[in-house]
Amino acid sequence: MKKVTVAAIAKEAGVSPGTVSNALNNRKGSISKEKRDHIIEVAEKLGYFKTGKRTGILTLVIYSKKERVVGDTPFFSELIRGLENEATKQDYRLNIIYIDSDQIGEIQQLDDVSKSDGLILLGTEMQLEDVERFENFRIPYIIIDNAYTNQKCDFLSINNRDGMYEITNYLVKKGYKRIGLINSINQINNFKERKMGYLQAMMDNGLNVVPELEAFVQPTIDDSYRDFKDYLVELIKGEDEMPDAFAAVNDYIALGAIRAMQELNVNVPITGFDDISFASYSTPSLTTVRVNKRYLGEVAVKRLIEKFSENENTLKIMVSTEIIERDSTK
Amino acid sequence: MKKVTVAAIAKEAGVSPGTVSNALNNRKGSISKEKRDHIIEVAEKLGYFKTGKRTGILTLVIYSKKERVVGDTPFFSELIRGLENEATKQDYRLNIIYIDSDQIGEIQQLDDVSKSDGLILLGTEMQLEDVERFENFRIPYIIIDNAYTNQKCDFLSINNRDGMYEITNYLVKKGYKRIGLINSINQINNFKERKMGYLQAMMDNGLNVVPELEAFVQPTIDDSYRDFKDYLVELIKGEDEMPDAFAAVNDYIALGAIRAMQELNVNVPITGFDDISFASYSTPSLTTVRVNKRYLGEVAVKRLIEKFSENENTLKIMVSTEIIERDSTK
Repeated sequence: MKKVTVAAIAKEAGVSPGTVSNALNNRKGSISKEKRDHIIEVAEKLGYFKTGKRTGILTLVIYSKKERVVGDTPFFSELIRGLENEATKQDYRLNIIYIDSDQIGEIQQLDDVSKSDGLILLGTEMQLEDVERFENFRIPYIIIDNAYTNQKCDFLSINNRDGMYEITNYLVKKGYKRIGLINSINQINNFKERKMGYLQAMMDNGLNVVPELEAFVQPTIDDSYRDFKDYLVELIKGEDEMPDAFAAVNDYIALGAIRAMQELNVNVPITGFDDISFASYSTPSLTTVRVNKRYLGEVAVKRLIEKFSENENTLKIMVSTEIIERDSTK
Repeated sequence: MKKVTVAAIAKEAGVSPGTVSNALNNRKGSISKEKRDHIIEVAEKLGYFKTGKRTGILTLVIYSKKERVVGDTPFFSELIRGLENEATKQDYRLNIIYIDSDQIGEIQQLDDVSKSDGLILLGTEMQLEDVERFENFRIPYIIIDNAYTNQKCDFLSINNRDGMYEITNYLVKKGYKRIGLINSINQINNFKERKMGYLQAMMDNGLNVVPELEAFVQPTIDDSYRDFKDYLVELIKGEDEMPDAFAAVNDYIALGAIRAMQELNVNVPITGFDDISFASYSTPSLTTVRVNKRYLGEVAVKRLIEKFSENENTLKIMVSTEIIERDSTK
């Protein structure tokens, strides 16, 4: 059978490949509903969408904002290893494509998506409307590293809330009471959940949440250093006491904050989240929350393959975390 | 091989069967640590604990307070069907035992537990310390219908938070703004999570959460009728306006509240949670949140069997819900 491509659909529908791409991508405003429906119909007629025949391919879709390189983290390599392990075990090949959220996907990418048995969408920076772009393909999918207040699809993420709850509790058990939160200005879902865990632990321990002790920084190491230094300077000038400890919503933020504290001669215990590889090499080494990312990848593939036979029920799955104790809280 | 029983351990250790039962049950205060350790050691030596050999049995442990009959709900029969379906499919028999939280389990029950390949603990009314009673048996287990802020074991529950979020959103979309919550005085985890979902939906819609519009009732139909009637009488006397709608944390509570409203000629839309079978027979029939309980049972067995080969990572899994629209919100 001849392989059906975007180009073939464009020819049959009498439009440009770019227009077909717009239709498949479900981009709002870029194309009228009638035109989109027509193109989808043509694609369907030609057999563009996978129709029951096993391709043996699972596709990881890395969806990101242009300026941020999601792939450039230890999280990523371990995750890929887990996905690949389990895919191989179950006799699938793992295909990977990058899609830039600001651009329409390359035509070749769309063809790749349409020929997969299932999609794993790396949703760290996805909005719910981004997910809708993949619904046209009628392929089972699972969203990883994100979880919306939504039950239409399967989500698999870190147990952010309980992880942050536990590390906050850990600080309380060490005798700290005024615990500040170093939060990100960019509020992706992972950070929101972590803040919830922090708040719950503070409340369960009967401790005050002092709004002035929540610092907001850009979530990169350099920006956190700069923003947290500004925050500390203000805090030192002001009337508020310095906190007993800080819990940061991720390791990059914590590591930037450590440098800022050192320059200002502030010596306050601090924790991170993620356990990036650099966390054990910093001075002091960073107490943080670790997730088994390889396991997360394995669970993702298992769940996706389960969905091939039952598609109506969705699950929200969270992978457990553990505290890694190092020098930053000693 | 001779079957090792509690009686045999008692004989070998030179204690009464009741003392062995105390030791296995891990009851605090009932026995010294030394004595407990000795008995466990004897049990181990005799081969009381399952040691790698497949028994082909999965045991559902129904753990409840004496005064409440957990099993007497539609939730239960569908759940059992799901568990049994999947167990049979995977070539296991499903064994069921009831353990009363106020009493030590019968000796026969402990023997049953020790000879299972895995345990499904119905945790609706379990506290974390209750779970610890099962750790002596060294058998993989999963807790269903509950989820603590704890990552030591696997939890499988309804997606309470998102379910309540969605039905609150549904009320908002119908134009209601002053939405009251009918909550339970007994705060099991399911209810806590549902309240979180309600609060989040109110906040995301920019609506005020009015503390006076949260009613607390006992979570049975009769008690809810009585308590909610008292609440309404006070509300009518007071200065607060009647809410536009009520969201109840479960169907029993909602059905009791409907009767109270009818007697007081209050006509306010109301929603429930669970979709018990009576929900469609009440007048008006009840708009509520449905969970696929059979599916929950199937997932429980799948996950438990997965744990036989990998025991170190835990998951928190939540099963999706859907809104069932009926007359109580028309």
